[in-house]
Amino acid sequence: MKRIAILGSTGSIGTSALAVIDAYPDRLRVVGLAAGRSADALSAQVQRYRPAVAAIGELAAVQALAAAAPHGTRVVGGAAGLIEVATHPDVDILLCASSGTTALEAVLAAIDAGKTIALANKEVLVMAGEMVTTAARARGVALLPVDSEHNAIHQCLHGRGAGEVRRLVLTASGGPFRAWPAERLLTARPEDALRHPTWQMGRKITIDSATLMNKGLEVIEAHWLFDVPANRIDVVVHPQSIVHSMVELTDGSIIAQLGVTDMRLPIQYAFSYPDRWGALLPPLDLTRCGALEFQPPDMERFPCLRLAYDALVAGGTMPVALNAANEIAVDAFLTGRLPFPAIAQVIETTLAAHDVQRTDTLAGVREADRWAREYSRALTDSLELPV
Amino acid sequence: MKRIAILGSTGSIGTSALAVIDAYPDRLRVVGLAAGRSADALSAQVQRYRPAVAAIGELAAVQALAAAAPHGTRVVGGAAGLIEVATHPDVDILLCASSGTTALEAVLAAIDAGKTIALANKEVLVMAGEMVTTAARARGVALLPVDSEHNAIHQCLHGRGAGEVRRLVLTASGGPFRAWPAERLLTARPEDALRHPTWQMGRKITIDSATLMNKGLEVIEAHWLFDVPANRIDVVVHPQSIVHSMVELTDGSIIAQLGVTDMRLPIQYAFSYPDRWGALLPPLDLTRCGALEFQPPDMERFPCLRLAYDALVAGGTMPVALNAANEIAVDAFLTGRLPFPAIAQVIETTLAAHDVQRTDTLAGVREADRWAREYSRALTDSLELPV
Repeated sequence: MKRIAILGSTGSIGTSALAVIDAYPDRLRVVGLAAGRSADALSAQVQRYRPAVAAIGELAAVQALAAAAPHGTRVVGGAAGLIEVATHPDVDILLCASSGTTALEAVLAAIDAGKTIALANKEVLVMAGEMVTTAARARGVALLPVDSEHNAIHQCLHGRGAGEVRRLVLTASGGPFRAWPAERLLTARPEDALRHPTWQMGRKITIDSATLMNKGLEVIEAHWLFDVPANRIDVVVHPQSIVHSMVELTDGSIIAQLGVTDMRLPIQYAFSYPDRWGALLPPLDLTRCGALEFQPPDMERFPCLRLAYDALVAGGTMPVALNAANEIAVDAFLTGRLPFPAIAQVIETTLAAHDVQRTDTLAGVREADRWAREYSRALTDSLELPV
Repeated sequence: MKRIAILGSTGSIGTSALAVIDAYPDRLRVVGLAAGRSADALSAQVQRYRPAVAAIGELAAVQALAAAAPHGTRVVGGAAGLIEVATHPDVDILLCASSGTTALEAVLAAIDAGKTIALANKEVLVMAGEMVTTAARARGVALLPVDSEHNAIHQCLHGRGAGEVRRLVLTASGGPFRAWPAERLLTARPEDALRHPTWQMGRKITIDSATLMNKGLEVIEAHWLFDVPANRIDVVVHPQSIVHSMVELTDGSIIAQLGVTDMRLPIQYAFSYPDRWGALLPPLDLTRCGALEFQPPDMERFPCLRLAYDALVAGGTMPVALNAANEIAVDAFLTGRLPFPAIAQVIETTLAAHDVQRTDTLAGVREADRWAREYSRALTDSLELPV
């Protein structure tokens, strides 16, 4: 029996994870749940799964949640609550599925407590990749990627060392604007982007998919997860999202992982690892999914991908600034305050102004994050469109 | 330094293997060479590589070969000579790349002598799969597949056990007649078939590729190599031959191996295994090889594939009869004595008349082979077209 805690249990990955747990009642058990603001949804989950501990980010919601929780569930709140869920002694695997940067401290605490980490949150590695991977190695803790692409690479490698790898190839759907000419991108609205062709995801990540920043963040993640430098991590646009990613080995042979586009697959892999369990979903029928296409990404129309590579090469706190500026710019786009191409402009200008620090403390990371948010917010305000 | 003997050194696989050996003079050395009838080509190879032992199948050619051989190369002939090459004390890896059934005894002798076997010959496993795999297991000898498809599966599995495998998926180019309607197949000539779209191969195997018998023989091989039953080995037509084969795992995840279509790649893999060396060829650029398509095979137009599945399920000597009847029928087609669709008819009629034996001796295998050749030859003669 593997005992699971989920940070971000009410989100898209969190609910998929609970579906996997539902399918294996003899093998998986929920012992911790945490959500940021969705108190009602969390309350329903707590009543159903009766975890040992439940955390809600909003301190104001703690009391109501506690009142509705079953006997035996301890209810906690805020950043300390998140850490309490992540490090609860009953937890074997922590699934970090919360979005944004709040989970960073909790993940580091869980590593310190020896928990296996199933990582579905990009920001943890983008902001503190060196800190997190160094801690995991030192503690002998497995860091299992749940992101479809990194999960695919984990499966392709299957224990092969870095010495056998020539290149990682992350596939990208290309997003909803893949075929849009540059001029049309000026008029792209949030609702255009939110029609994602192959994956059902949250709003922020869907915009990141449209700008290719999502892929850029994944390049940074892949660097930390698999210890491969930026110049040996490639992105290829694959609109069908059937090949989830690939590894080119030293002799030129390419190993690829393919599957249906459903997050329950990589989540189950992380929960079952190193074993592999049965299929929850009908298998992929390659003879019915049309031709598979592969194209080079267009970094002219989608400069966010290039910015992410640049930030990774610059190192230090540059990826922190990239991520922070992106969050601010995407939010401004989603609320109609910024045109689509300005997302990349805000990020690029912020990075150009960022004074990179080589830091190995969370405080240093948080300071770079704070600076970049402030800078890019001011920039966004100055660019703001008339509503 | 790995010391290599090659059965079939003058053929297409044999010369590719020598090109790989040429590329790694510090890691690979030729110690044995054997050919069937190409005495001149073998003589040139012997002078260049100066192996410890060289064998020519035709006894009449031994004397001339010996006269031209360098000092230090022992020249032998016939079936005994083949065994002498395969079991020479200097040999670490035996590459079995001869076509047809003559290598069977030599491969069994090499297993008995503890040699690693790199297997590029289909008939060895089709005729004596149980005997060969049982012997290799008992002797602790690695059986490394060089056939592109099985080599791909070996790379996809990468140590994963049968318990993790739901399905093997062999890809097939579909051959030159993939898009031909059934009526047109009646008029197909050998020269039509010999224009293979993606692989450069010998005449016999090119016709096998056109009938899909090649894929049928590979299904039988895959059964023995990977211990997976016939109903969990699928064939999918993939005209681009970029995906060399796939493994579907229990959870529905598919691992595929992709690469350029050049036999030096799987040969090098077998020679370097368990290590992996550098690339001899420019890597595959997926963004330049067009869309990848996958279709179910058409067993109505290409009944040879169905016959191979049937023979594998029937077991015993049925695959022996399948292979023998196929050789006779393909030869008749290649020499203009049989129309293309009659290849399958000759095989089907032979299999229907075959009295399956459960044998575990080479004599039993040879007897079934002899019977099926005789039967199908008589059948072919009776069907023969006016020249």
